Amino acid sequence: MEGKEEDVRLGANRYSERQPIGTAAQGSDDKDYKEPPPAPLFEAEELASWSFYRAGIAEFVATFLFLYISILTVMGVSKSSSKCATVGIQGIAWSFGGMIFALVYCTAGISGGHINPAVTFGLFLARKLSLTRALFYMVMQCLGAICGAGVVKGFQQGLYMGAGGGANAVNPGYTKGDGLGAEIVGTFVLVYTVFSATDAKRSARDSHVPILAPLPIGFAVFLVHLATIPITGTGINPARSLGAAIIYNRSHAWNDHWIFWVGPFIGAALAAIYHVVIIRAIPFKSRD
Amino acid sequence: MEGKEEDVRLGANRYSERQPIGTAAQGSDDKDYKEPPPAPLFEAEELASWSFYRAGIAEFVATFLFLYISILTVMGVSKSSSKCATVGIQGIAWSFGGMIFALVYCTAGISGGHINPAVTFGLFLARKLSLTRALFYMVMQCLGAICGAGVVKGFQQGLYMGAGGGANAVNPGYTKGDGLGAEIVGTFVLVYTVFSATDAKRSARDSHVPILAPLPIGFAVFLVHLATIPITGTGINPARSLGAAIIYNRSHAWNDHWIFWVGPFIGAALAAIYHVVIIRAIPFKSRD
Amino acid sequence: MEGKEEDVRLGANRYSERQPIGTAAQGSDDKDYKEPPPAPLFEAEELASWSFYRAGIAEFVATFLFLYISILTVMGVSKSSSKCATVGIQGIAWSFGGMIFALVYCTAGISGGHINPAVTFGLFLARKLSLTRALFYMVMQCLGAICGAGVVKGFQQGLYMGAGGGANAVNPGYTKGDGLGAEIVGTFVLVYTVFSATDAKRSARDSHVPILAPLPIGFAVFLVHLATIPITGTGINPARSLGAAIIYNRSHAWNDHWIFWVGPFIGAALAAIYHVVIIRAIPFKSRD
Amino acid sequence: MEGKEEDVRLGANRYSERQPIGTAAQGSDDKDYKEPPPAPLFEAEELASWSFYRAGIAEFVATFLFLYISILTVMGVSKSSSKCATVGIQGIAWSFGGMIFALVYCTAGISGGHINPAVTFGLFLARKLSLTRALFYMVMQCLGAICGAGVVKGFQQGLYMGAGGGANAVNPGYTKGDGLGAEIVGTFVLVYTVFSATDAKRSARDSHVPILAPLPIGFAVFLVHLATIPITGTGINPARSLGAAIIYNRSHAWNDHWIFWVGPFIGAALAAIYHVVIIRAIPFKSRD
Repeated sequence: MEGKEEDVRLGANRYSERQPIGTAAQGSDDKDYKEPPPAPLFEAEELASWSFYRAGIAEFVATFLFLYISILTVMGVSKSSSKCATVGIQGIAWSFGGMIFALVYCTAGISGGHINPAVTFGLFLARKLSLTRALFYMVMQCLGAICGAGVVKGFQQGLYMGAGGGANAVNPGYTKGDGLGAEIVGTFVLVYTVFSATDAKRSARDSHVPILAPLPIGFAVFLVHLATIPITGTGINPARSLGAAIIYNRSHAWNDHWIFWVGPFIGAALAAIYHVVIIRAIPFKSRD
Repeated sequence: MEGKEEDVRLGANRYSERQPIGTAAQGSDDKDYKEPPPAPLFEAEELASWSFYRAGIAEFVATFLFLYISILTVMGVSKSSSKCATVGIQGIAWSFGGMIFALVYCTAGISGGHINPAVTFGLFLARKLSLTRALFYMVMQCLGAICGAGVVKGFQQGLYMGAGGGANAVNPGYTKGDGLGAEIVGTFVLVYTVFSATDAKRSARDSHVPILAPLPIGFAVFLVHLATIPITGTGINPARSLGAAIIYNRSHAWNDHWIFWVGPFIGAALAAIYHVVIIRAIPFKSRD
Repeated sequence: MEGKEEDVRLGANRYSERQPIGTAAQGSDDKDYKEPPPAPLFEAEELASWSFYRAGIAEFVATFLFLYISILTVMGVSKSSSKCATVGIQGIAWSFGGMIFALVYCTAGISGGHINPAVTFGLFLARKLSLTRALFYMVMQCLGAICGAGVVKGFQQGLYMGAGGGANAVNPGYTKGDGLGAEIVGTFVLVYTVFSATDAKRSARDSHVPILAPLPIGFAVFLVHLATIPITGTGINPARSLGAAIIYNRSHAWNDHWIFWVGPFIGAALAAIYHVVIIRAIPFKSRD
Repeated sequence: MEGKEEDVRLGANRYSERQPIGTAAQGSDDKDYKEPPPAPLFEAEELASWSFYRAGIAEFVATFLFLYISILTVMGVSKSSSKCATVGIQGIAWSFGGMIFALVYCTAGISGGHINPAVTFGLFLARKLSLTRALFYMVMQCLGAICGAGVVKGFQQGLYMGAGGGANAVNPGYTKGDGLGAEIVGTFVLVYTVFSATDAKRSARDSHVPILAPLPIGFAVFLVHLATIPITGTGINPARSLGAAIIYNRSHAWNDHWIFWVGPFIGAALAAIYHVVIIRAIPFKSRD
């Protein structure tokens, strides 16, 4: 992405109108705004810059903290026989969503604030980052998630193993197809929100887009958890699912594990296609 | 709306003061700010632009995701015998309100982010969009809602039918008049907030208006759910009520269904009248 | 306030630095920034302007909606024998705080968004509005609150009277002094937040102040409810207490009623003194 | 800090791009942006300014209100035998996090909005404020916390002593090492968020950084409470732990008390090192 994004501040002056809530986008803008060129697959220059490695470290730390806080919250709820004496299932949903809000806020300017291989995959498909960077991020995210879940296990090993370790699996009463579907649509909600927040053209026009950005992204994670915790415990983040599965390491968690990679990647791809083809209509533009 | 809204950024320089919280609006501003002309009823040009159809698709997808996440949350709460082991009624309210926050954030720049025929109706009455666009939006919203509820039914058909399918109905202990009143005032709260967020004159003066906009709109939906779930399950969105009713399809849901169209439309009309006549005092201005 | 507030946008250029979170305010700014002159006690011009009456109507409608949604939420929680099957006490706190957030957002540019006689009183003491306006607002707020509580009673009269009608009273186990103290400190939290949000000097320097403003004000109300619902049911708003007391109209509610006027007014006065004397140090400035 | 922070508004023009969410930071910026010089250890001039003492008073009042509201909420939950009839553990987490949000909003422009000796310590290590100011803040924070907890005890002394007084201690089932670890990582989350919000370079480039700032800081506190209330009751703020311990004053609370000073200070130091060494890479820059 480095140095290729258009100057949004200057670009803003080219629009003769800002788009208030409640009115539709202006069609003719599409011709004025120049689409930034796609990120190259490999960028040698990138590998020589400190900011590349710093971004990877930031993704590692953010995913570590994400798993640490959220899985610890899950343990606290599982531990108690009466859910009323805990923060409850709703508290778990706040924990996942709230951490994504805070961590996207903190790391957006350093690494882009992905904290999720599915988000990285979706943005890569839209050519918003190079393949090398995408793979580096995913490795760092998975390592961070494993460490985060490991520290939680370190607190109380018996409780961790007894309470399922925060690992994702399809719950009784649902088929594997249900679980896969829930992961696909859930990840679509998240990655669609990320694309809406990263749309440089919209940022130039609607002041709420760049400023609020981390908040709806965090809320999307919160809302998907409210809806799909009863189905799969909610993955929509392969690093989170992998970290918990490796530290928990029982066949129960591994049997369904493919769902939490295939589902999120399909959902992210659909969101990327929806954004690029329908919302931005990039394939249909003669020259931009 | 296309191309008719005044340049708010430039317009902002005309005000010699910004209005902090806690102080009242300045009366003399009213003469400086030019009301944008009303949208025409039919606009042929609109039908030839991609942005018109894109806006309809965005409304479809948003309403689909809205019903999917919110009705799935309702199912998760209904399924469990102990509400304490679920996200609870409060979690349901967050689900409806939070989705509206995230989806208005995502679609405001594409379609205006209505996701609700009552909002479309209110904005149409204030002549903020053409009749063709209003009807197109309402059809797409209803189709999206039907699909969203249908996918939730697909997960667990037995549970869906047993738990009432998220369909709205007046609860025992309340009269149909109570339900209608609750829908009218509830929708007034929502559409009043939408009008406050879309007021171009206020956006030019108060920086919190355009930037926070999706958040109070989502909160309005959350708050009305907190208050009126015990009365009607809370509609305030005819597409949401219609989608759940069609997929549930029992006489129980259809008997009261008119309430969830008449109530929201009356509430939206009252909010439009309040905004246009009292807040903006448009009928009393000689020329603008 | 009309027309007397300095141009904040222009004024902003006079500060050579913006103040990030985590660092302290610069002392020397105090001399550069001109305090706006205090509002006169009586302003004849004001009474002839439509915006004066519009502001009163906006306060009436906002307080009406505030009581309607919040008291209806209280009724829904009281009705159920198991709090787990309702939005719970936390849901009540969200209802009061969330409505203030949404309504301050909506009415800040029209009337200043007080929705509370204690806020009006505090701002009047700081000479931010005229005496005529302050009295007019308080009357409209009380009328709106009575109507809002009345509509809730209209839904289910038996439930309303049985469940205490949302009226404030000191709960068993607490003395009247405890209740008064809780109201004083609680209102201090709210009005202190309002003053922080209305500080034109800070708005000029810190971008989060004017933009977020309605959110911390709503949160202040939410937080005070979390803390003091077990003590008094939480007033911190004499119009809210009066509206519920008049509609409920039993000696139980009237006996303690003075606490919910004296407490909030003392708290608001303390917040005004704290802001004017300590934070702005206005009495110690030779000329501004 | 006074007068040494660079002009962020002017500085913003030097960046040819704003960094949207989802893309990584540009490496070459690092050379353009001049690091502000570190704050001196002692600054005589500071001691002669009113703003120095005003900042201390603001820290006192904020920490007083923080303890008052949060400990009162804890008491309300502890009092009831059924957690369902209270705001619950989640409500306690909201109380702590929400108050930090509101108070950082209110005091950021006056004192920097620390309200926590660990935050002051972390910012001091990064040389963002002088040693004299840091010590003055910590003393005022501790005094404020003692007064806040004392007022809560004053309401109902029996309840206060019976319910543990909101004092922090390692809960049964966890070792002192667990408690220390939980405090270290929890404070890291908070102080890392504070550093992200106070990064003047990021504020210049990403519009969401300065504007949202108080919100993710409050959320960080909320989230750490969701996760670690079952372990230690959550300190991550030595003033809060000291205030409750002094007013409660039983050996139970004093035995573990060192954990709530050592843990937060280690966590804050780690966050400062992470920010300065990894994120800003200040030690590796030849001249800035």
